[in-house]
Amino acid sequence: MDWLDKVKWDANGLVPVIAQERDSGDVLMFAWMNREALAATHASGRAVYWSRSRARLWHKGEESGHVQQVHEIRLDCDKDVVLLKVTQLGHDPSVACHTGRHSCFYRQLGRDGEWHSVEPVLVDPESIYKK
Amino acid sequence: MDWLDKVKWDANGLVPVIAQERDSGDVLMFAWMNREALAATHASGRAVYWSRSRARLWHKGEESGHVQQVHEIRLDCDKDVVLLKVTQLGHDPSVACHTGRHSCFYRQLGRDGEWHSVEPVLVDPESIYKK
Repeated sequence: MDWLDKVKWDANGLVPVIAQERDSGDVLMFAWMNREALAATHASGRAVYWSRSRARLWHKGEESGHVQQVHEIRLDCDKDVVLLKVTQLGHDPSVACHTGRHSCFYRQLGRDGEWHSVEPVLVDPESIYKK
Repeated sequence: MDWLDKVKWDANGLVPVIAQERDSGDVLMFAWMNREALAATHASGRAVYWSRSRARLWHKGEESGHVQQVHEIRLDCDKDVVLLKVTQLGHDPSVACHTGRHSCFYRQLGRDGEWHSVEPVLVDPESIYKK
């Protein structure tokens, strides 16, 4: 498909992807996609990433149930980064992170020069992956 | 500095960075930092990236005047992605992209299977780099 050819895939055939919650504007997570993952995301309307650690397609929510409904697919000026605008399904309030938090970006650098967890755990992460 | 050691730098000593506008929630751009860039960002309160194409530190706004004031530095669950919450200075309405647009993510995949520019050019990009 022509639109997939316009993406500048890196040397590994991947592109970085930012998932942003449409309604809140919160940045939920960051992951990677290959061509097949981006095509599947577009075709299904659900976020499908490429898991670098498992070296396979990762249908977000396949284990946790925390599926992402995709409203918009954006591409940046250099055509090498994708931004998804999503609704994070599966829990209310929404949980995108495997730690059971709303967002993966829960560590904040404090004035004391330390990283602090500033977002609560909403779901016991043990329970997420027993579903 | 200890907090810099907690970041998981990639094989090239870099970490991906998302810049989000604090007040609007808009994702403005995506770039990379090395250790020196992240330390300089923290110390100065202004975004300093690592330019992979120029292989040097890139003080955002050094040519364009479109400096980013950094309010928060966040780190994700895997400690390998940074999120900045910024105020984009230098133009009103704010311009983060070298194309003269508000955000770098101005291309949207349409129902017709084509990428469309959906954000206006706010500043002539020619003029940005003549300052």
